[in-house]
Amino acid sequence: MKSFVISSRLSCMIISALCALLFFISHAHGQTDPLPSWNDGPAKQAIIQFVQDTTDQASPKFVPPEARIATFDQDGTLWVEHPIYTQVMYCLERVPAVVKAKPELKNVEPFKTVLSGNREAMAKLSMKNLEKILAATLTGMTVDEFNAEVKKWIETARDQRWKRPYTALVYQPMLEVLSYLRANGYKTYIVTGGGQDFVRVYSEHVYGIPPEQVVGTAGGTKYGYAKDGKPFLTKEPKLLLNDDNTGKPEGIHLMIGRRPYAAFGNSTGDRQMLESTKAGDGARLSMIVLHDDAKREYAYGPAQGLPATKVGAFTQALYDEAKKQGWTVISMKNDWKVIFPFENK
Amino acid sequence: MKSFVISSRLSCMIISALCALLFFISHAHGQTDPLPSWNDGPAKQAIIQFVQDTTDQASPKFVPPEARIATFDQDGTLWVEHPIYTQVMYCLERVPAVVKAKPELKNVEPFKTVLSGNREAMAKLSMKNLEKILAATLTGMTVDEFNAEVKKWIETARDQRWKRPYTALVYQPMLEVLSYLRANGYKTYIVTGGGQDFVRVYSEHVYGIPPEQVVGTAGGTKYGYAKDGKPFLTKEPKLLLNDDNTGKPEGIHLMIGRRPYAAFGNSTGDRQMLESTKAGDGARLSMIVLHDDAKREYAYGPAQGLPATKVGAFTQALYDEAKKQGWTVISMKNDWKVIFPFENK
Repeated sequence: MKSFVISSRLSCMIISALCALLFFISHAHGQTDPLPSWNDGPAKQAIIQFVQDTTDQASPKFVPPEARIATFDQDGTLWVEHPIYTQVMYCLERVPAVVKAKPELKNVEPFKTVLSGNREAMAKLSMKNLEKILAATLTGMTVDEFNAEVKKWIETARDQRWKRPYTALVYQPMLEVLSYLRANGYKTYIVTGGGQDFVRVYSEHVYGIPPEQVVGTAGGTKYGYAKDGKPFLTKEPKLLLNDDNTGKPEGIHLMIGRRPYAAFGNSTGDRQMLESTKAGDGARLSMIVLHDDAKREYAYGPAQGLPATKVGAFTQALYDEAKKQGWTVISMKNDWKVIFPFENK
Repeated sequence: MKSFVISSRLSCMIISALCALLFFISHAHGQTDPLPSWNDGPAKQAIIQFVQDTTDQASPKFVPPEARIATFDQDGTLWVEHPIYTQVMYCLERVPAVVKAKPELKNVEPFKTVLSGNREAMAKLSMKNLEKILAATLTGMTVDEFNAEVKKWIETARDQRWKRPYTALVYQPMLEVLSYLRANGYKTYIVTGGGQDFVRVYSEHVYGIPPEQVVGTAGGTKYGYAKDGKPFLTKEPKLLLNDDNTGKPEGIHLMIGRRPYAAFGNSTGDRQMLESTKAGDGARLSMIVLHDDAKREYAYGPAQGLPATKVGAFTQALYDEAKKQGWTVISMKNDWKVIFPFENK
């Protein structure tokens, strides 16, 4: 027993020495810019200050590693949401396969309109009709079938403007924030109004965020058995969590159970997540992306006189609340050197 | 740039050397028994074999670190559930405070019976009446108020038989399994029929499992604002997830989104979690605790002729399924050297 104690102490000493050396190496590397795609300015400064404050044990704002939670909206915050949410594109493009399996839907609205391919008519579909399409394309299949379909689609589908996979249209500066926070002990979460199951298919690959750290709009599933006795889950058309607006802090409570220290959004649907994050004690960072770069991406508000939009609206009232509550507004035009990873290649 | 590349390469070499050394040290220590409270036998062997198979890169059953998920039922699997679930004790002991705040409940059933302190009458309360008590003591307050109440109670309440805090009545052998799995890259989750918010209050402290890795029966919350404008969440009497029976794999899908590689339970409420875990590809470990030790803890089944119980029933049909499906039955009497951590002190 004694020899074990000595060997254990010796190992501890060795490990301590190694840790010090590792710290020295990482510290030396830490001199390089963690956010190279960000222009110097208040937004970049706010992120760096927040990380320094919450990870320095000598700081009154120090946050213990286990409490370091950061949440990110997806559409319009981590990737492009215009002219239409990517998941809605998925649903529209799934309609032919759904109709093929159920030919009786062929001449029934809204499927008829979607099959016509008339984009103008599709853009005018009512919310009720859109919900019918979502229900038909997102529920009724097994979880495994759904995951396989989304995986296949996300690998092959292309955005109309850039002719690239949707997953290439992520914001390089935000990828750097994700990495920077994780390198400083933060658990990064997606908290999206989009479908939880949809985003989980690619979140690890695209953002380095594992499925269990994706919170989104979620429906129920139903447990059953195949003919061979193997159990499986079927996606049901029953809404459990509408993860938008007040649903975001409610979803964070349900799925994480702690208040985030940092939250990132871009539209009215993120307001409650940003204000509840900022309402916590100590250092809290709430940031909101303003799409003000029509040339490199899109420009929409209607905050600051930008054109109004139905997809990802950022109202002037939200802009005013951001200023009042001390959230930092990120100007895509002024704060970001590049928008997409492929610009660096 | 060139010097950075060289220094980066050099660091990599140093780090590799350090890792090799660390591996050597940990490997040397690995010779010590990771499960010292387990008797040698098929249960202990199954756990060790599973960990070796899934963490050895040369094994065909190797599981990449990000997919290593293990789920544990709580009541009767990680801690004592007899004679009554700990959370139900909390609810019963909260009744006087609830009645003090709402005196009109004083002469209304089932509150009247609980206030009487007549344990025999309380044991006979119908499920409907029990639900009234749960609703009155688990909902209607803010999330922060609830957390504070549970924290205070769990620190002061005592079990009648051992005269110890409930959190002392955790199973030492299972704590070792949790640590052993985590040391081998597994994310450990609680998947409980009990209240998610209740367990999250103490899970990190007691089991080393952070709140975001607790899946349990969950109700809705409602976002609102205090007079000073600060937002808060109120616990609503609206069931979102009944995390028992089929609700366990459904809850795992909702909250984790991947199939576990290992699952541990002890009663019919865990059946679907255990069978869906075992139904996955590759190495999968499903284990079930049999309470067959009346002397050191409790003995109940009714599997194997043990006395029947309403709390945590382990039927003979479940025992037969365990044998048929290749789940490993853990005999508390035969597999565990000690039951509780305090026996070692």
